[in-house]
Amino acid sequence: MAGNTLGEVYRITNWGESHGPSIGVVVDGCPSDLAITPEEIQVDLDRRKPGQSKVSTSRNEKDTVQILSGVFEGKTTGTPISLLIQNKDYENEDYENFVEIFRPGHADFTYKKKYGRRDPFGGGRSSARITAGHVAAGAIAKKYLTKVNDIEIVGYVKSVKDISINIEIDELEKDKVESNIVRCPDQDKAQEMISLIEKYKEEGDSVGGVVECVIKNPPIGLGEPVFSKLHADLAHAALSINATKGFEIGEGFKAAQYKGSEHNDSFDFDKNGEVITKTNHAGGVLGGISNGMPIKFRVAFKPPPTIGKEQDTINEKGDKVKLSASGRHDPCVVPRAVPIVEAMAANIIMDHYLRQKTRQK
Amino acid sequence: MAGNTLGEVYRITNWGESHGPSIGVVVDGCPSDLAITPEEIQVDLDRRKPGQSKVSTSRNEKDTVQILSGVFEGKTTGTPISLLIQNKDYENEDYENFVEIFRPGHADFTYKKKYGRRDPFGGGRSSARITAGHVAAGAIAKKYLTKVNDIEIVGYVKSVKDISINIEIDELEKDKVESNIVRCPDQDKAQEMISLIEKYKEEGDSVGGVVECVIKNPPIGLGEPVFSKLHADLAHAALSINATKGFEIGEGFKAAQYKGSEHNDSFDFDKNGEVITKTNHAGGVLGGISNGMPIKFRVAFKPPPTIGKEQDTINEKGDKVKLSASGRHDPCVVPRAVPIVEAMAANIIMDHYLRQKTRQK
Amino acid sequence: MAGNTLGEVYRITNWGESHGPSIGVVVDGCPSDLAITPEEIQVDLDRRKPGQSKVSTSRNEKDTVQILSGVFEGKTTGTPISLLIQNKDYENEDYENFVEIFRPGHADFTYKKKYGRRDPFGGGRSSARITAGHVAAGAIAKKYLTKVNDIEIVGYVKSVKDISINIEIDELEKDKVESNIVRCPDQDKAQEMISLIEKYKEEGDSVGGVVECVIKNPPIGLGEPVFSKLHADLAHAALSINATKGFEIGEGFKAAQYKGSEHNDSFDFDKNGEVITKTNHAGGVLGGISNGMPIKFRVAFKPPPTIGKEQDTINEKGDKVKLSASGRHDPCVVPRAVPIVEAMAANIIMDHYLRQKTRQK
Amino acid sequence: MAGNTLGEVYRITNWGESHGPSIGVVVDGCPSDLAITPEEIQVDLDRRKPGQSKVSTSRNEKDTVQILSGVFEGKTTGTPISLLIQNKDYENEDYENFVEIFRPGHADFTYKKKYGRRDPFGGGRSSARITAGHVAAGAIAKKYLTKVNDIEIVGYVKSVKDISINIEIDELEKDKVESNIVRCPDQDKAQEMISLIEKYKEEGDSVGGVVECVIKNPPIGLGEPVFSKLHADLAHAALSINATKGFEIGEGFKAAQYKGSEHNDSFDFDKNGEVITKTNHAGGVLGGISNGMPIKFRVAFKPPPTIGKEQDTINEKGDKVKLSASGRHDPCVVPRAVPIVEAMAANIIMDHYLRQKTRQK
Repeated sequence: MAGNTLGEVYRITNWGESHGPSIGVVVDGCPSDLAITPEEIQVDLDRRKPGQSKVSTSRNEKDTVQILSGVFEGKTTGTPISLLIQNKDYENEDYENFVEIFRPGHADFTYKKKYGRRDPFGGGRSSARITAGHVAAGAIAKKYLTKVNDIEIVGYVKSVKDISINIEIDELEKDKVESNIVRCPDQDKAQEMISLIEKYKEEGDSVGGVVECVIKNPPIGLGEPVFSKLHADLAHAALSINATKGFEIGEGFKAAQYKGSEHNDSFDFDKNGEVITKTNHAGGVLGGISNGMPIKFRVAFKPPPTIGKEQDTINEKGDKVKLSASGRHDPCVVPRAVPIVEAMAANIIMDHYLRQKTRQK
Repeated sequence: MAGNTLGEVYRITNWGESHGPSIGVVVDGCPSDLAITPEEIQVDLDRRKPGQSKVSTSRNEKDTVQILSGVFEGKTTGTPISLLIQNKDYENEDYENFVEIFRPGHADFTYKKKYGRRDPFGGGRSSARITAGHVAAGAIAKKYLTKVNDIEIVGYVKSVKDISINIEIDELEKDKVESNIVRCPDQDKAQEMISLIEKYKEEGDSVGGVVECVIKNPPIGLGEPVFSKLHADLAHAALSINATKGFEIGEGFKAAQYKGSEHNDSFDFDKNGEVITKTNHAGGVLGGISNGMPIKFRVAFKPPPTIGKEQDTINEKGDKVKLSASGRHDPCVVPRAVPIVEAMAANIIMDHYLRQKTRQK
Repeated sequence: MAGNTLGEVYRITNWGESHGPSIGVVVDGCPSDLAITPEEIQVDLDRRKPGQSKVSTSRNEKDTVQILSGVFEGKTTGTPISLLIQNKDYENEDYENFVEIFRPGHADFTYKKKYGRRDPFGGGRSSARITAGHVAAGAIAKKYLTKVNDIEIVGYVKSVKDISINIEIDELEKDKVESNIVRCPDQDKAQEMISLIEKYKEEGDSVGGVVECVIKNPPIGLGEPVFSKLHADLAHAALSINATKGFEIGEGFKAAQYKGSEHNDSFDFDKNGEVITKTNHAGGVLGGISNGMPIKFRVAFKPPPTIGKEQDTINEKGDKVKLSASGRHDPCVVPRAVPIVEAMAANIIMDHYLRQKTRQK
Repeated sequence: MAGNTLGEVYRITNWGESHGPSIGVVVDGCPSDLAITPEEIQVDLDRRKPGQSKVSTSRNEKDTVQILSGVFEGKTTGTPISLLIQNKDYENEDYENFVEIFRPGHADFTYKKKYGRRDPFGGGRSSARITAGHVAAGAIAKKYLTKVNDIEIVGYVKSVKDISINIEIDELEKDKVESNIVRCPDQDKAQEMISLIEKYKEEGDSVGGVVECVIKNPPIGLGEPVFSKLHADLAHAALSINATKGFEIGEGFKAAQYKGSEHNDSFDFDKNGEVITKTNHAGGVLGGISNGMPIKFRVAFKPPPTIGKEQDTINEKGDKVKLSASGRHDPCVVPRAVPIVEAMAANIIMDHYLRQKTRQK
């Protein structure tokens, strides 16, 4: 109801503020007997953590995760898994001057109006820092999904501003994505993207981009019509990530320009007699239910609103003021957003995988 | 859990199949003392109903709604409102030949795999017919929202295939939208769209399009971070509608191509001293919470998968077969989708309006 | 949130008022492929329906159930099952005089205060009539539970006022319960109970009683600590029934008078090597989870508040008034409450049975 | 779904095991701007903590609470409040011998069967230790309820085994309850209870009891029929506490022995013209909704299952074994259960208070 819990069976409850003592997530509903270590969770947290490269913020956090409950002798017990990450490198003085300012493009104004008061330091609750909890929960989900069905979830940066790539699903590999700091599997385009981000960073500006995410080897039958369609839940989860402005699955908005005879994916059998579709314009979902083909979706991220350039704005007292940010911030969020998008996909697929267990006798 | 209920405070539970005796929705959580009549609900149902024009399916249903509970002497009592619509004009013989066929682009295959069995007639549960319930619930929400805060929700067809319009929010009026059968407020473009749809209909084909929806005069503070951000919930609701493939708010995917200095909306005061933003690239939402500016989002619809043209597919027995649909169907769904998108927006805004009542002391 | 939905996986949404056109329930989350007919559901509805004997109200309703969705060719499809019962024999004139009166022991006053307005006829939404929906949903659950695990749920009247029986679980059979109109398996005591009820009925008074319910052959492992303990959920469901004032499991309140060495049930093996407890003071639940022993609980019902005897009360206008009920009503609710208690137990066990499917890998 | 979250608007998510590094609770949905300090929460935690007297377990835990989020400059911000308590004094060696034993009356066997594996130390997740989280959440709720409506919640020990007291609501004061270690407001009976508990403790046995809880000055209109009736939700919450076997409201099971003319509470006006009932057999709830009279309910606790006396039982390997507990444990739980029952009442009343905000326009 208050918006800090996601999922029906695999439920994650997120808490914490950017500059509080710690942040965390409680994962409830994970089946028992799954082997999981802090180190396994840490892998994705490290992909998300700040200070990891020159295209990310310089805030320096190790984001070391602690497992406080729900895991006994290295395996889950079916009880809630409480994960905690200490906040260490926060500098409230960076924000002292902004405490009463409503920063353009940020949630300062809306939090103030919604709740009547707010923690302004580092964006408080509205900081993208709290997505570390999403990633930690997603790492457990990924482990489970790989184990039960060999499901693989791979995200990558598809575009930064107007630099964009196309890649076939078969060619998309995690290693290629991780081989550069912008997380784009096309190494040449990756360099262009990096240069572009650095250029805007130097200008005291920022830039948007698109993350694409592919779920390989999904089970057939995930998704609960009519109000928990798989793509609707993926959209909901993806758009829960900070700075998102759009979601599309399969052909997405381009589908609106197709004729039916072009867009329909014909059913066929593969060499093992399994049902497939010859094309996959649908992106792996029909009627809100996975059809076994790879699931492919994209998420649009706006340019980060914190910029060095001077901007007009107002403060809580009702004055018009000028603002030039000096805090640490990402010039482009998509490189660090890749593991977050993957994690949100994992959390949703995990939830639906478990829900589907109750659908047939 | 099973996906047929939407909302936290204003909750709608949808039931029914295309060719069953009836379809319906139970609306729970509507505050008491709201005056509402079947006739008021009927207005939007008539905008959605089949057979309304030459660009919609020829199935002929009056979709007359009955209120079975929750309304006493013309006003809501705070108890569940049960709404029922009889199915009348269904012809199972149209579908006799398809009973065992998995139609491309439809949910026949995925329902079969998910549940083990399915009602195939008219698409059964996966038919867009069941969105009548969404519209009925949305009509009650619209009435409430207008009453408490003068909120207005206006959808329209923004594009059909590659014919597209741009319109300023101030110029967008319900009357203009309703003045033609394709529900596009630009009368010239509307005619082009109609011609295009008719062309594809004659070819035994279908075509996609985009619906844009504007929420005028929204209260500030709606949306529950982090997992019920207003745009995430709008996306979830919109993508629960049949045939949807994408959602975007504000600049949407175009935002990914902006620089921060371009995309940020500067805060300012209007002539009454109320806080506004000078531009509205955000589409009315900051940090997942409404900021008082008009909320603007778009939904992409694929071309309807039922087409007259012959297609390759398979059946339940494992044979490859040819399919040419003879059932009644829409050549393009966006004209009838307009009231559905509006209704889903109303259901979400209503839910968040009520949720916000609990946020401050 | 608004209180008309129960359950997590097997979810029932109840709607309707006593004197509205109809009442009903939507059952969501029932697994597919369960054979179910209206006639099977009707069996329990007939056990609950009014006018069935001289110890029940004289309102005459057949309570014929219609299945409007979710069942195709006699089997469930996994989609919502909408069940509807017409209201036929309602006489608003019986209530004309009470419309503005707050009847003692009834919910007239609290509904008025809670919602601001109410449907007063026949108690409106607060009428026990709406438990027909509970029973209908429970009948489907019973069918499923019998099929998957041979689970049997048997309720009976344990006491009426101070006439009480004790019966061993092994001797408790449905036939014995149904062999008399008060639903007490001890035929002699049953006659005493009937006489007592008739006596109070003649006096224009009413009387309370206790229903005991036994769940035979429950699976081990049902119940979700810490906040969905099986006995907590059974209590919640049982106390959702009108006129209930108490719930206890196993020894219940008597357990508070035991020593630990007396109350603890020693574990042992039965002849097949299955784990049992030698005694069953716990009533089949340990730590909120079923242990495989029969589950046994009791529910206390107050005497029905509608009585012929003159009572002091007040009306909506603020006057003190005298009230003598002339409407039709039960002199004692427990005989008709037996199938309701069973149904609520079935709804809960069904829900937990399905939830348990997600707990282990 | 997995049972570790309670509430709709005021939601608490509990995590942790008896001998893990820490335990905790996330409180979501608390309105903003409530002043709250760790010290205020600590008051009730101290009433619950182990080692507080000779009638409680000798485990020594300070149960010092830390607020990790959701409170900024001493006031709530409307975001999740994460509360954490370190586990310090746990001795796994006490349990080494029991690791494979299913202790009678404990949840060892059912956890093992439900989840396939379990943390056995100190009872793991099934330990009453985790109710510290309930109490912490309840302390925040109490603060809020006092502030908004001067609601007071007072629990006390009504009986230990067969020693029982009766007390008028007007005479029930927190100070009297807290003036002795057994938390019984009748000082003479309190001494008897203490002696009785000590006697059984010496015998290596344990004993049950009953806690009564009174909610003074409740608002009218709390409770959501039909499935979130106030007494049903109180029962659910109370029976979520370890070792509970029964719940009753008002006259409870005794109501089943009344005639309607005796049990009905006549409506009247008090000297201020406010509606009251002359008697309060109902215990403050009519039709599942609070009527403004004090709410009074009782909870039955079984004797703690951990006893020194030798008992027959079995182990995981399938052997019959003898068990004599040497771990630290309470000989009677009711003295420490008083703040837990109060807290669960507070959590429920808080939730319903917030829910009621959405019921009327």
